Amino acid sequence: MKVEIISIGDELLIGQTVNTNASYLAKGLTELGLEVKRVTTVGDDAVDIRAGLSLAMEKSDLVVVTGGLGPTHDDITKAVVADFFGSELILDKEYLERLKRAFERRGWKMAKVNEGQAFMPHNAQILENPVGTAPGLLFERDSKKCFVLPGVPSEMKAICEDSVFPMLHGTGEIILQKTVRTTGIPESTLFEDIGDIAKIEQLAKMAFLPKASGVDIRLTVTGSDEVACKKRLEQARRLLEKKIGKYIYAYDDEALEEVVSRLLLDAGKTIAVAESCTGGLLASKLTNIPGSSNYFEYGVVTYSNQAKTDILGVPADILATRGAVSEETAIAMAESVRKISRTDFGLSTTGIAGPGGGTAEKPVGLVYIGLATARKSYARRLIFTKDRLANKERSVQAALSLLKKELS
Amino acid sequence: MKVEIISIGDELLIGQTVNTNASYLAKGLTELGLEVKRVTTVGDDAVDIRAGLSLAMEKSDLVVVTGGLGPTHDDITKAVVADFFGSELILDKEYLERLKRAFERRGWKMAKVNEGQAFMPHNAQILENPVGTAPGLLFERDSKKCFVLPGVPSEMKAICEDSVFPMLHGTGEIILQKTVRTTGIPESTLFEDIGDIAKIEQLAKMAFLPKASGVDIRLTVTGSDEVACKKRLEQARRLLEKKIGKYIYAYDDEALEEVVSRLLLDAGKTIAVAESCTGGLLASKLTNIPGSSNYFEYGVVTYSNQAKTDILGVPADILATRGAVSEETAIAMAESVRKISRTDFGLSTTGIAGPGGGTAEKPVGLVYIGLATARKSYARRLIFTKDRLANKERSVQAALSLLKKELS
Repeated sequence: MKVEIISIGDELLIGQTVNTNASYLAKGLTELGLEVKRVTTVGDDAVDIRAGLSLAMEKSDLVVVTGGLGPTHDDITKAVVADFFGSELILDKEYLERLKRAFERRGWKMAKVNEGQAFMPHNAQILENPVGTAPGLLFERDSKKCFVLPGVPSEMKAICEDSVFPMLHGTGEIILQKTVRTTGIPESTLFEDIGDIAKIEQLAKMAFLPKASGVDIRLTVTGSDEVACKKRLEQARRLLEKKIGKYIYAYDDEALEEVVSRLLLDAGKTIAVAESCTGGLLASKLTNIPGSSNYFEYGVVTYSNQAKTDILGVPADILATRGAVSEETAIAMAESVRKISRTDFGLSTTGIAGPGGGTAEKPVGLVYIGLATARKSYARRLIFTKDRLANKERSVQAALSLLKKELS
Repeated sequence: MKVEIISIGDELLIGQTVNTNASYLAKGLTELGLEVKRVTTVGDDAVDIRAGLSLAMEKSDLVVVTGGLGPTHDDITKAVVADFFGSELILDKEYLERLKRAFERRGWKMAKVNEGQAFMPHNAQILENPVGTAPGLLFERDSKKCFVLPGVPSEMKAICEDSVFPMLHGTGEIILQKTVRTTGIPESTLFEDIGDIAKIEQLAKMAFLPKASGVDIRLTVTGSDEVACKKRLEQARRLLEKKIGKYIYAYDDEALEEVVSRLLLDAGKTIAVAESCTGGLLASKLTNIPGSSNYFEYGVVTYSNQAKTDILGVPADILATRGAVSEETAIAMAESVRKISRTDFGLSTTGIAGPGGGTAEKPVGLVYIGLATARKSYARRLIFTKDRLANKERSVQAALSLLKKELS
């Protein structure tokens, strides 16, 4: 089944916004075994939207349109698409009431301009938007489908997950994918360690995707027999595991903080963190997981030496002789936060995030991760780049990785 | 002058790669005063590339094609485009020698497959690639231009900066933009508060861009007289400021944490934060800014009631009678962290991030922000949605916004 995506929005044509919606949709539709043939981006312009839609409905079996469903004057997609499908816009009183209640819940009065969002095309199916005010729409003509979704990424994704993808399930050929997630090893070394790429590619297509969190390897198997496809995918995965198993931390979309969370819950263990260079990001990642209050006791961001001494009791002579960015400080921070919070683990970060502050001996990107348990304490030394935000991300990933090894 | 961008590559259609090339080009071309009317993405497929190019050359004055110029079997763009323009591919011996030398300099032997890159369309102008092996090409027909560039972002950008943008300089009209950033107010209410949209749109085109951080309003002015354009843009900005000034926190790309950082540095003030529902994200945002160690003293993530009492000394009877998510707890947390760290400000968050944990009285999304200064302490109550990560983002934005008001 041929698919076309139409992205609507002036912000895309002036380069203010990167079109991440199109890549999200392309990925989701491809995983359903559908063939995305083209992505077209046009502005909030009735003539251009209509021309794009007309061409897409002619060439493709399925069209997904995003953007321009908001309440303001520049949101014209619903009117243009409804007109294209010969549809009348009729006030949906029930939807209007729901909209009003949604605003009331947040303590806001609904603006007059939102009323327009309750006018629905008479011949379209309404797809509920669980996180916003603009619902998705589904038009059908000559056994071709056209989905129309809001452009706000969180809303577009929610409607895809709740409605669009389930409705399209089973309509494409079988495409199975497995993403093998690694961390702590560069792409080229990973490639060399795997060795015989051709052997794995006889089973599954491989793609290397380097990210701040590490290198993901995507395996893809296509075919008509689901059992055979599954078998090939698992064989390929096992070959990879044999070669690079020690760098694999998770599969598919699971993040390292989710793995660590699961391991902590299973073991009934608790954790506290003391952060310097990661500035709260380690605690934030750990508390992104629902239910994290079961294992996350306490986090502290001691940015200054004063705070390291006052709050964590890091000995002043360690800070004076070894420095704030040192193995000794990392260990003292981890031990102290563990003791203060009476948790099973204390995890710490201290480093030079950059872009300034480095010396010849301690360059920007130098980071120590400290871990304290009931039986031992140790630190790991790492060197990253000059990019402050990337260094924060990588330090958190390295800290979680160290904790995972301790829990496995 | 109307422009179309054509992005070529299977990786874009399966969602493996986000099309950042298109947004880079769109931004650069818009800044040159050219009007990007459409972006089309197609795969490495001769029929689709040719169809896209044909349509684009018919509708637009300028076409920029990227992708598919590499040395491997799936790079077919050069052959397809050359054929479209009736061009013969001829071996450019000089270019072949330069390629060989470029490989030698890096200590590599040039692979046989790279030789194909030295075959050039006889009627195209060659645009040097300072960072890679595939040069850019410029075809002209009926006073229309078609640039063809490699898809590797660093190579595409280098050729744009060295050749494409300088060649197009002065061909477009003047386009000036200003983004007005607001937070703490829904898009529809903002729209109503502004009131006479038509009056502002006589000066500048307006677009509303809702994000997790708030709603951005983009003003765009087009014309031939730069001084007049600047004046209109400033008049439109002032009209907006008059109507919705209290919701504006920054202009253009500046983030709220950058504004707060600047205000803290200017005032020579320091801050400490105590977080519950935001779990470290508030500290992390504040420490994303280089130089944050000048004002950020200390952060604490007290997720459990025990930690709130032990570390921050929040009275047990407040937790028992009012609950952890309450005005009283938010204020106690802010006052305590300020006192412990001897800073000018103490900022706190406590709430129910979700997805679970809500009650009828205290629903998921309920958040209190507390702020303590030398003279006073107070809290603000907010209700967000059921989305955990969005609630964290919005709570942080609300906390920074409260601090900004105190600093302004």
